[in-house]
Amino acid sequence: MAGTAQHKILLDESQLPTQWYNVVPDLPSPPPPPLHPGTLQPVGPDDLAPLFPMDLILQEVTGERYVDIPGEVLDVYKLWRPSPLYRAHRLEQALGTPARIYYKYEGVSPAGSHKPNTAVPQAFYNAKAGVRKLTTETGAGQWGTALSFASALFGLECEVWMVGASYDQKPYRRIMMETYGAQVHRSPSDLTQAGKAIRVDNPEHPGSLGIAISEAVEVAAQDPDTRYALGSVLNHVLLHQTVIGEEALLQLAAVDEQPDVIVGCTGGGSNFGGLAFPFLREKLAGRMSPTIRAVEPASCPSLTRGVYAYDFGDTAGMTPLLKMHTLGHRFIPDPIHAGGLRYHGMSPLLSHVYELGLIEALALPQTECFAAALQFARTEGIVPAPEPTHALAAAIREAQACTESGEEKVILTALCGHGHFDLAAYESYLSGRMVDEDVPDERFADALADLPEVPA
Amino acid sequence: MAGTAQHKILLDESQLPTQWYNVVPDLPSPPPPPLHPGTLQPVGPDDLAPLFPMDLILQEVTGERYVDIPGEVLDVYKLWRPSPLYRAHRLEQALGTPARIYYKYEGVSPAGSHKPNTAVPQAFYNAKAGVRKLTTETGAGQWGTALSFASALFGLECEVWMVGASYDQKPYRRIMMETYGAQVHRSPSDLTQAGKAIRVDNPEHPGSLGIAISEAVEVAAQDPDTRYALGSVLNHVLLHQTVIGEEALLQLAAVDEQPDVIVGCTGGGSNFGGLAFPFLREKLAGRMSPTIRAVEPASCPSLTRGVYAYDFGDTAGMTPLLKMHTLGHRFIPDPIHAGGLRYHGMSPLLSHVYELGLIEALALPQTECFAAALQFARTEGIVPAPEPTHALAAAIREAQACTESGEEKVILTALCGHGHFDLAAYESYLSGRMVDEDVPDERFADALADLPEVPA
Repeated sequence: MAGTAQHKILLDESQLPTQWYNVVPDLPSPPPPPLHPGTLQPVGPDDLAPLFPMDLILQEVTGERYVDIPGEVLDVYKLWRPSPLYRAHRLEQALGTPARIYYKYEGVSPAGSHKPNTAVPQAFYNAKAGVRKLTTETGAGQWGTALSFASALFGLECEVWMVGASYDQKPYRRIMMETYGAQVHRSPSDLTQAGKAIRVDNPEHPGSLGIAISEAVEVAAQDPDTRYALGSVLNHVLLHQTVIGEEALLQLAAVDEQPDVIVGCTGGGSNFGGLAFPFLREKLAGRMSPTIRAVEPASCPSLTRGVYAYDFGDTAGMTPLLKMHTLGHRFIPDPIHAGGLRYHGMSPLLSHVYELGLIEALALPQTECFAAALQFARTEGIVPAPEPTHALAAAIREAQACTESGEEKVILTALCGHGHFDLAAYESYLSGRMVDEDVPDERFADALADLPEVPA
Repeated sequence: MAGTAQHKILLDESQLPTQWYNVVPDLPSPPPPPLHPGTLQPVGPDDLAPLFPMDLILQEVTGERYVDIPGEVLDVYKLWRPSPLYRAHRLEQALGTPARIYYKYEGVSPAGSHKPNTAVPQAFYNAKAGVRKLTTETGAGQWGTALSFASALFGLECEVWMVGASYDQKPYRRIMMETYGAQVHRSPSDLTQAGKAIRVDNPEHPGSLGIAISEAVEVAAQDPDTRYALGSVLNHVLLHQTVIGEEALLQLAAVDEQPDVIVGCTGGGSNFGGLAFPFLREKLAGRMSPTIRAVEPASCPSLTRGVYAYDFGDTAGMTPLLKMHTLGHRFIPDPIHAGGLRYHGMSPLLSHVYELGLIEALALPQTECFAAALQFARTEGIVPAPEPTHALAAAIREAQACTESGEEKVILTALCGHGHFDLAAYESYLSGRMVDEDVPDERFADALADLPEVPA
């Protein structure tokens, strides 16, 4: 194969998708609406107006199949999009598999992950609405970095509440956000009532995503020039991420391929939905028939071990109620290294699609994922973020099955970011200190006992 | 410009250059040869055989204008090459300049810099010669990461001596090399005579690039299955890097542009030579007439304040004597943040080209460079490594001059890597702690008094 095999399938900037795809109108039934936690009635646009600009609220509830991407957003997307689709020749050789493995690489974005796909339009629509400042939370740091970057480009201030433990352990993540001009606070902070209430008991509290959300929401709700931005879970976030799948469709078509299996990692669901929904459209229309599989960590398995029920989106119970696969909003996942997958719930839209039987789910232990990551780095070169190691491990399982069976399946996966800020997790694996947590059934049962009561 | 301006000029894999360019035969005179430090006679291939495989030694001295890139190397290059050329629309707008700024981005390589352009062929030729293990040194970590990556792909062991201070301060760099399978030692180590001799006096010695080179060379010279690899300075390294400039030529031609000014940063000179030499060929042939300018740090200004003389390549004085611009092999640069530019000398080939008057040189203080880096990150999105911030600052100076004069110059620069492992330097700048060292003339004079004596 010396000097001949094609590794990257690139698209020209002129081939960048100009519309996001909304899967809802193509589904046999719409997903259940979010409910107001007090009235238990469906949430309306006005309920959300203190937090989001109207353009995003309308995208959250739209029934249109396609939504135009504004020119200003396309202009920023072009800093890194269309992103490359890779054929993993070297990994295939190492596995001795007849399968053909393709991965869509989102780590080429300046922030290093798929998150800017939605951070950029969110910043744009807020700037267009005259908003001056965005607030948000960040755990692993990918989302905070993406929103800081997007805010810089649209002249918005950006204030990030970073989970305390992460703030202490990942100073580089904080500095990257500050390099983009954002202000980063250790959460819980003294700047909010929510933060102060917790610091009274423990000034050094390590924080949680739920607390950080409460702080960011509190600040946004109090200032008419400030809004809040969320990096996953919601419909408009998944909508924006569909550029991933739309590009991948064009790229596979350019080499005359159709996927037999699509695997992606799921935390809140935006990376997976972004890749999978355009292919699901093709599947529902009978134009292709891939198996679509969501991969989640064994220690935070909302699809495979959670229930499908109305639950709060945050730990503190302040958000609207969302119908989703959940481990219970009080479930605190073990501190696995893929911080971006440590969420108790799952995107309501993706949960609905799973409930409809249109996708499968699989939970994997983290040591298998890091073994896959090392094999990937030593063949394909890229050091993956901890989150997509789950997708790579699932792709390798599938390719190894092909080695056994002799099937020449086409496997598509999403490498949603690089691991340059996550090397402490690699050290944990390389040194043999990483273990697979075995979550006892009682812990799941305990957390599910706290679900809010919603009449059917 | 909404949704219309082209940001990236991409080449197809089929347009990847298949030859490296050697500038030597196009120069009015050849560069002076390296000398054996004992005999003061030109070094021959046999002198270098304990350290390098014969293919690389022959490339070091070749008089051929073009050298074919092996198919196995092209196959690895395709993991990230051709690299993108960007038009910096947003930076131009922020500067209000009529200039058009283009930057060639090498941070898309898995190792995050231009270094794999030579690490990959070096690993390939060593593997082809039956070598089992490569040794090298690394300071900032870019080169060690690149060689670790390349060694993994060609099944070589890789042993890296990492400057002690860097080893202590940059654990993520070390872990990235280990992720690729390399063995990383803190230098000075107990594994070599050179290291032990220093540790006798100070077991916690912070090390230096010179010491680390001595350790890596010592281990390679003692084992017939082991060779040594160098990441800059030498002719064959600059040769491999010319893929950068060859691609940039094709990319500018694709948008009907010719550069008026080319600026690149120089440490050992490989990134700059790689970008500049193909354009120098065009200039010498009368096909274009760019000003070509090397940019170095004010605290390590070998071209602008050094002398052109024979000197050792390492601090300890073990290497052949190289005719180059040097601050003296005992010059210890201040601890500026661009570790990759802290080298007392300059590539002999680039020094010769400078002496011939074919390129200019400029020294910049680091705070101006980081101010440029922030402006770049907040407009173009990419957070640059500390080294190319020097090139960006020089490009911005040139663009601002165009704002004054109204000239529509085309400025080309090389963004040779991202700064994901260098954010401590950004923190130093953002917090106001970064200062510009003012090196007194006596320090330069003192170091130059130690130059070896070589009869004219």
